Amino acid sequence: MTEYPAFAQPVEIRWSDQDLMGHVNNARILTLVEESRILWLRSLNGWDRDINPTVVVRTEINYRKPVMYGPELVIELGVGRIGGSSYGITFRGIQEEAVVFDGVNVLVGVDPVKLTPRQLSESELGILNRFGTFDPEAPTDLTAEPVSR
Amino acid sequence: MTEYPAFAQPVEIRWSDQDLMGHVNNARILTLVEESRILWLRSLNGWDRDINPTVVVRTEINYRKPVMYGPELVIELGVGRIGGSSYGITFRGIQEEAVVFDGVNVLVGVDPVKLTPRQLSESELGILNRFGTFDPEAPTDLTAEPVSR
Amino acid sequence: MTEYPAFAQPVEIRWSDQDLMGHVNNARILTLVEESRILWLRSLNGWDRDINPTVVVRTEINYRKPVMYGPELVIELGVGRIGGSSYGITFRGIQEEAVVFDGVNVLVGVDPVKLTPRQLSESELGILNRFGTFDPEAPTDLTAEPVSR
Amino acid sequence: MTEYPAFAQPVEIRWSDQDLMGHVNNARILTLVEESRILWLRSLNGWDRDINPTVVVRTEINYRKPVMYGPELVIELGVGRIGGSSYGITFRGIQEEAVVFDGVNVLVGVDPVKLTPRQLSESELGILNRFGTFDPEAPTDLTAEPVSR
Repeated sequence: MTEYPAFAQPVEIRWSDQDLMGHVNNARILTLVEESRILWLRSLNGWDRDINPTVVVRTEINYRKPVMYGPELVIELGVGRIGGSSYGITFRGIQEEAVVFDGVNVLVGVDPVKLTPRQLSESELGILNRFGTFDPEAPTDLTAEPVSR
Repeated sequence: MTEYPAFAQPVEIRWSDQDLMGHVNNARILTLVEESRILWLRSLNGWDRDINPTVVVRTEINYRKPVMYGPELVIELGVGRIGGSSYGITFRGIQEEAVVFDGVNVLVGVDPVKLTPRQLSESELGILNRFGTFDPEAPTDLTAEPVSR
Repeated sequence: MTEYPAFAQPVEIRWSDQDLMGHVNNARILTLVEESRILWLRSLNGWDRDINPTVVVRTEINYRKPVMYGPELVIELGVGRIGGSSYGITFRGIQEEAVVFDGVNVLVGVDPVKLTPRQLSESELGILNRFGTFDPEAPTDLTAEPVSR
Repeated sequence: MTEYPAFAQPVEIRWSDQDLMGHVNNARILTLVEESRILWLRSLNGWDRDINPTVVVRTEINYRKPVMYGPELVIELGVGRIGGSSYGITFRGIQEEAVVFDGVNVLVGVDPVKLTPRQLSESELGILNRFGTFDPEAPTDLTAEPVSR
């Protein structure tokens, strides 16, 4: 059984996250996603990001609707494609029952000292394989079934 | 003849752009790209972003090397795929003669009042069609020829 | 009877609020204070910041202890000196039962169109006069009595 | 002879430094001041902030005019009161020949390991004593003579 979402939590938008356009700035949205990802990784038993760091090597994001200051924003995380040294964390922002953005961060495990890529550990793979993602063919469909492995 | 880059300018990295990892934060890099894009659009004769606004609907970025505080960072911009109402602005960050990140912002023209998608104007298409991009098949090759239309 | 605090609420610190020193950046702390101030003003009945805007003209802040990512941070607000067109909002950040910073923002009422200073309205004065502040002679004393008017 | 300013350099304002009010955000201005201060300290021979760190313990800032995106902003630094373990760095932002903000950061030397206050070294005092500040009685007078020690 694949769990989805791996993590879902409201994040506090600040007034200063808005730009001149009157909604949350595009780049700032990735800061909100980063915060969710860090909170999730910190919450996982057996995941030690100081010993086994991973770094973001690629991000894709679709901005589907303006994100507003005021209404609650929930960010859902899932786990996408898992390789030998890399894995994807998918994310989806939901505000007022609509998907306002979705995308994926690709992360790579690195050696804590040399910062060169390393194989993901058994413990990391064990954790990641528990989770699925929303259907990447229909990422804005809130009723989509999570994709199983 | 296709011009490339459409714009290339150093951007000032701030000490506070660094995160705990000791290099420029991933999300903050998109703020630097945003700044380059805005400076470029403001520099174009005949491009009036107040009258004909465009909004970012999608971003892809590859983080290829850590971006450091200190050495000069130049961001090069190009123009990617152009559609009826959308266009891509490609970007490439260069620090110490290496490509440190590259990617694309997809923008869509919107009606200034209703914010619904609109066709790009003749004037916008005329400007965009002057420029090419680095070879997307070889984005980190600094000697790559710009792709012509 | 003077009420104190006028507002007290936890604010979410983000991982990215930390700087290279490993604690929340000095300048960013003012962003957290700004967020509290805006949430408070929005919560007040009869205070309409769009009709009667006020702008910050002066800030004083004492950084008493490093603010850490992780433990809850509560920001308490009070009302300091009130003049004809200006007023002070005092603030105090509390983390793990210690005052980690304290200070004051001085705000001035401005005309919504001309942005020139204006007298505070009866309604604004009525609201502000309800609240006191922590004892400015003993700002880090958590047991200090609020100063009455 | 007292030198003033100790440092004066334009800083690049970013479009994203603006807030909904249409000018550079109050808190963000302190980030610009921080950047100037760090550039200055790094430029000083004999000042080694890794070996002899100093931390900001207090900030005062007056916001005198809105800071706009577009025109050049120069930040001037001076040295204020010097104590046994602390010193003030005064700052003044100038845009279109007007003082747009001014203030002071108070810094304290700390032990690099224990982070407890330490006496300023002879080398630090020698550097700091070379510089004066703008007249604190007339901080917005651009013709004011620097205050000598």
